[in-house]
This record gives sequence, C-alpha cells and structure tokens, in this order.
Amino acid sequence: MYDHLKGFRDFYPDEMAPRREVIDTMEDAAKRYGFREIGTPALERTQMYVDKSGEEIVDELYAFTDKGDREVALTPELTPTVARMVVAKQQALSKPIKWVSTRPFWRYEQVQQGRFREFYQTNVDIFGSSEPEADAEILAFAADALTDLGLSADDFEFRVSHRDILGGLLTAFDDDVDTRAAIRAVDKRAKVDETEYLGLLTDAGLSWDDAESFDDLVTGGDLDAIAEFGGDDVEAAVDNLREVLAAAEDFGAREYCTVSLTTARGLDYYTGVVFECFDSTGEVGRSVFGGGRYDDLIESFGGQPTPAVGVAPGHAPLNLLLQRAGVWPEDAASTDYYVLSVGDTRSVASRVARDLRAAGNTVETDVSGRSFGAQMGYADSIGAETVVIVGEQDLENDEVTVKEMDSGEQTTAPVDDFPGDRDAPSYDDYA
Amino acid sequence: MYDHLKGFRDFYPDEMAPRREVIDTMEDAAKRYGFREIGTPALERTQMYVDKSGEEIVDELYAFTDKGDREVALTPELTPTVARMVVAKQQALSKPIKWVSTRPFWRYEQVQQGRFREFYQTNVDIFGSSEPEADAEILAFAADALTDLGLSADDFEFRVSHRDILGGLLTAFDDDVDTRAAIRAVDKRAKVDETEYLGLLTDAGLSWDDAESFDDLVTGGDLDAIAEFGGDDVEAAVDNLREVLAAAEDFGAREYCTVSLTTARGLDYYTGVVFECFDSTGEVGRSVFGGGRYDDLIESFGGQPTPAVGVAPGHAPLNLLLQRAGVWPEDAASTDYYVLSVGDTRSVASRVARDLRAAGNTVETDVSGRSFGAQMGYADSIGAETVVIVGEQDLENDEVTVKEMDSGEQTTAPVDDFPGDRDAPSYDDYA
Repeated sequence: MYDHLKGFRDFYPDEMAPRREVIDTMEDAAKRYGFREIGTPALERTQMYVDKSGEEIVDELYAFTDKGDREVALTPELTPTVARMVVAKQQALSKPIKWVSTRPFWRYEQVQQGRFREFYQTNVDIFGSSEPEADAEILAFAADALTDLGLSADDFEFRVSHRDILGGLLTAFDDDVDTRAAIRAVDKRAKVDETEYLGLLTDAGLSWDDAESFDDLVTGGDLDAIAEFGGDDVEAAVDNLREVLAAAEDFGAREYCTVSLTTARGLDYYTGVVFECFDSTGEVGRSVFGGGRYDDLIESFGGQPTPAVGVAPGHAPLNLLLQRAGVWPEDAASTDYYVLSVGDTRSVASRVARDLRAAGNTVETDVSGRSFGAQMGYADSIGAETVVIVGEQDLENDEVTVKEMDSGEQTTAPVDDFPGDRDAPSYDDYA
Repeated sequence: MYDHLKGFRDFYPDEMAPRREVIDTMEDAAKRYGFREIGTPALERTQMYVDKSGEEIVDELYAFTDKGDREVALTPELTPTVARMVVAKQQALSKPIKWVSTRPFWRYEQVQQGRFREFYQTNVDIFGSSEPEADAEILAFAADALTDLGLSADDFEFRVSHRDILGGLLTAFDDDVDTRAAIRAVDKRAKVDETEYLGLLTDAGLSWDDAESFDDLVTGGDLDAIAEFGGDDVEAAVDNLREVLAAAEDFGAREYCTVSLTTARGLDYYTGVVFECFDSTGEVGRSVFGGGRYDDLIESFGGQPTPAVGVAPGHAPLNLLLQRAGVWPEDAASTDYYVLSVGDTRSVASRVARDLRAAGNTVETDVSGRSFGAQMGYADSIGAETVVIVGEQDLENDEVTVKEMDSGEQTTAPVDDFPGDRDAPSYDDYA
C-alpha cells in the first residue's frame, strides 16, 4: 500500500466540496472586480527565484535538474511567474492588468498546523497603476472575499502599514542603518521578546536608544508625529497610506483596516502599502495572509517600470480562520435525483435520468446491478432529495413513483409527463 | 528577461477564458452524473509508477530526489494516485466510488502539436462496479461532455473494443503467444505498414499465417464468428461488449460508438472494454483521448479486488478537435459595467459599483487616476456593456449618466435610484 508524501494531501469528496466552495467564492469576488483568470506553469527555472530572493531560497525549493539539464524548481509562489508574464507581453497588455488564479505551490519546509509542503493560494494582482485606488481595490477584493465567505468585521482585521514609513524613519534615525535587516526585525517583533527585538534593531545599525525611540514612534501610531520626525519621504508615505485608507473607505473596506506600522511583511520586494490579515480573536495566531505594493519587481525582471500591488490568500490558514469563526462550509453530500430501476426498465429509467440531467440536475442511476433495497440505501447515502422509482408494475400503468426522501412521502406520476417541461419535478408536482 | 520552460505554457486571460469554459463544461457534465470532485497531489513516490509501468517509465518522468532523500516524481497521470486513494480508504468509501478532477500532469517527452510536457486532463472514474452500466456511464459522460461543448455525431466517434476479445483470440490461435506484446502490436496497427504489423505479431509468437487470420478476424468485425472461433472466454467478452453497447444505447451514447477491435489502448493495465475517441473527419489524426476498464489495478496496489472503469480527456488534443469543428469558445472579453468617475465623485461612484457587484455583476472602476477620455477608452477595451458616468455636474442634479456602449445611446438616471432594486440596470430602464 502506498501513502501520500509528507506535507502533501489527498482531498476526498467530503473534504474537496468545502474547499471548492471557498475557492469559487474567492474567485467570484475577484471576477466581480474585473480580475481575469490566467493559467501558469508548475515548473520554472530555479535562477528566477535565486535572482529574486537570493541563493538561500534554493534550500526551500523542490529544485532539481531536468532531463534536458535545466535547473528547474516547482513554483514556490506566483509573483515571479506573473512578473515574467507581464514582461513578456508588456506592450500588448492594456493597463491596468488585473489577474486572478488559484493553484498549488510547493516549498520544502517544516509541516505544521495550517502549513503544508503543497499549499494552495488565490493570487490577485494589479499591474500598471501606482494610484491609491489600486491598493484600495486589493483591500476591497480581500474584504469582499472574506465577507462573502461568511466572516464579519468581528472575525478579521487587515493590519496596514507602509514600507517607506518604516524605511524612512530608520534612515531619519541613522543614515547608515541596514534598512532591510531592520524591517525584518520589525516583522519578527511579535514573535520575540523586547530585548531580542531591540537587539536585532541594534544589529541592523541603530543605537539602543534610537531603537527604543523608533519602537515608541511606530507603536505609538501618531502619523502626524511620525511624518514630522521622518522628513519629506516619510511624510509622502504617510500621505500615501492615508490616501489608500480614504479610497478603502469609499470602496467599503476601511472598517476592516487598522493602521499597524509594525506590520512589515517578511519579503524584501514590497515597496509601499503592505498589509496582513489577522484573526481578530487571536485564536489563529499567525498572519492568515498578506499583500501589498511591489513597484520595483517588474523592472528588476527586465521590464519597463510598472507599479504593482497584490494579495495572495493561502487556503490552509484561511480555512483555519473560517473554521474558528464557524463558517467553514460543511454541506453533506446532496444529489437532486436518484432514478431507481427494477426489472426490465432500464430504457425508461435512462430516458428519465437523461431528461432530468438535460435540465441541469445531478442524477444518479444504478451502475452496479443492485436490488431495490440496495439502491434505496445508496440513494440515501448520496443524499438524494427525490427518488424516481421505475418499476415494471408501475410501467404497466404508464406510471413512475416519485418519492420525497426527507418526508418519505411518495406518489405516482404519468411516465410520459415525467419530468415533462419541469426543470426540477418534485413529489408536490404530482401529489 | 525570463522565459517559460519548453513544453510549458503561460495562459493569458484571452487564452484562459475558453480553456476555463471547456473545463467547466466537462466538469458540469460529470457532476450531473453524480461524480464528486477530489483533489490530488502533484508529487508522488517514483516507485508507484515503476511498480505499475516498469522501470522504463522513469525516462518519461520529471523524477528527482527530494531534500528528505525520497525518490519522487511529478505525477504523469492520475490513475495510480486515485488507486492509492481508493486503497487507503477502501472500507470507508461507499461504492460505487465516482470521482472527477481536472489538473495538470507532467511528462518529459517530445513537444509536438497538441502534446506538451505540462498537460491538462479531466479524469472521471467509477470504482466498485463490474456491471456494463458502469462502462456505459463513462461513455455517456464522455458523449455528454463533447456534445455540451458543441460537437455532434458528425465530429467524433468512440472506437470501442475489448481487451479479452483480443487476448482470447490470440490464445485461441496459440497458447504460447505473448499476449501483451501482441496487443501492443495491434495498438500500433494504424501507424505501421502491414508487413511490419504482421512482423510484430510474429515477434509476439504467432505464425505468419495465424497473424494474417487473426488480423482478418479482428478487422472483419463479425462478433459471432469471433465468439465461435475464440471459445468460451472470447464469447463472454463479446457478450460483455454487447451488454455495454446496449446500456450505452439506453444511456444515449450508442450513436457515437463504433466497434473497432483494433483499438487496443497502449496501456497494459486495461482488462475489459476499452475505447478511444477519434475525430470523425480524421483531421486530428491521432486518438483525442481514451478510456476503459481496469479491474486489476486496485488489487495490484494492495487493495481488495475492486473493478474500475474511467476516461481521461486530455485538453490539448480535445481543444484541437474543438477548433477543427469550429466550436472552440472564443468570446471576446466582456464586462457588465464600467463606473466612470470624474472630479470629486469617487465616493458615489464606489457606492454605485458596490451595489452593482452585490447583485453579482462584473464591475470595474478607475484605479489609475485617468481622464474621462482615457477611462472611456479603457471601458471599451474591456468590452464594458454599460458605462455609468458619475460626474460632478450630473451629481449636482442628483443624477448619473447611463451609456449603452453598443448603441452609444445614453440617458440620465436618478442617483438614488441607480441601481435601485435592479440586478442589471440598463439604458432601457431609464430612457
């Protein structure tokens, strides 16, 4: 007997049905904003990830040499692929480019709750606009997706920050600070104790006093004070953050947003507004997903300078949040009709099943040569709402029996008038 | 600038939209028969494929050693994975097990028209029934999927055969024949000349005379003569083939089926009825897809004996057939509404957009800070059916302008009554 690989999952129908509902809900939300679906490959050249994230990324990749001696890797994220695609057709694509897709990604990492080696994300990105409305549309899509899934403002919050506020403040304290290292330290703030956090900031080049003052400023959250202290660049970043929040207000997403300057996103390539979605109750302890602006990536991939902003909800942590909030879709299997054939009635039963399917119904019939009782048991197990019994005796009277499974009530219907012109004929139509 | 890997494809929205329509149509057809969606991993242990198909399969795989020293491979097909999943939950799963899924697979092979290294299939399988109705339901699903896609009996045919007819006939000629080699020869019949074909049969152990007689019998297609010559096993196989075709008649799929005993399917694990879908015009030269019965696989994977039958349309060859038949879906991009905001009107424009989205419409708004003219151009480029213009002057009169893009006609509507309780407000509602 074989087993699946560690960190990979098999989804049986009972597990797949709610996942499909979540995926469809998120994609529908994106499509209502005019995001268009794209399809992307599972393998890319490893070099693309090294160029973007450094040689150390290879340790996390499913990377190997293919039979044509290419260094390739299973895609660990979508952003480099979409950046490559934007660059390849930069002239032909009209702006803004608004793309959505849902698919698996792969990282060789420690398996833990809500984290797998094969994991699914819905990526939603806008290329070609640096306006605050683009950032706000990403926030509004994310808010719509979550509320469509049944979550409310009591369940989640978007902690919104701005890379240039943090970067500008750090430089205002000390021109020689290693901004990236310091921002990574901020990203770790909630996970380490204060001494370790301040230590990381001093490692990045701040004095201990400056580190404390910096932390006071960013946790205080007084944007005016921050703008005044930080100078022109920080003031521009504060203005941009406020514009994004104002647009989010118009777009219906402001109520889910909290300004949280210690939210930094771990990834180096973010350039402007960044945000992370958190469980408001704190029960799902870490960030559910995040997004933000990455205006430099397309140019670094050899394209024309092209601003970009996006979000990529990962399904495993999102599903933890949905379960915590009690809105995880757990529909039992249901089937519109089971057409039960006993005796030499397959021809008529098949005609009935085909007519019901042509009207869009889900219809099962016997494919196992089963008895009446066994078919009824199967119809029950698949949650059939109505069973249409096509038996030899009924057919002699040109009738079929229509049985409503919930109530157990049944009646007969003229075989020539079943389903007739009804799309969803029921017991009530013939009783 | 990076490029995608050879044999891998990027699908931009214009290419993805028709592919999505094809996938949805096929999956809808399967779901109407009660097939339930499953989700499956992209990586499996290489050994599983070696056990099923022999060591030589590794040459075709994207196989490598992962960071945990496991020999793994990108899945080249779904069947071993679903067999593994059936075995893992054999007791818990009620029979028949009816599963559907659409996803990519990977093989390192020569790239040619309609054949890629990353390719997509919709797999549809029934486990747990050896009855002819199960084979027929697979044929009926496939026929429904193709006709739902716009194809007719003039466009395609299912060439139906039976492994035990071929195998039994071969044994009837000569007990010592290498049946698998001979069936592989039959599978090559259309691709090689007669001398080579008969040579392959003699390589498998038939005399030249027997090879000729065998070929006469299987191409003659006289099932009674075949049953008589072949003895009990062949007679049982002929009966089974006829029962499957009779069930296919009841299920509405018989008209697409042609008995073609030289259709053998290349894969060793088929055990009963097999079939391949061909372009009736011959323009798409090779088999579009195929399927059949594989009753021994689950047991060979360590499970209880479990009969199985399935089909796996590959999208690339199917799409060639759809294009040949002129039914490839080529919808231009369309968008229900573009809400155009000029001046200080974003708040109202956003409210209008949100109301339209809440009714399920696809609605874009400006995220690029564009002028009136640039927004109209963009609305046109995304195929917006209606543009709602929210301008400062109109708003002073508590109005918005509703412009039908096809006709160019426009009228005003009270802002408080747009969209009002209309799900899809149009020019006509206010003209």
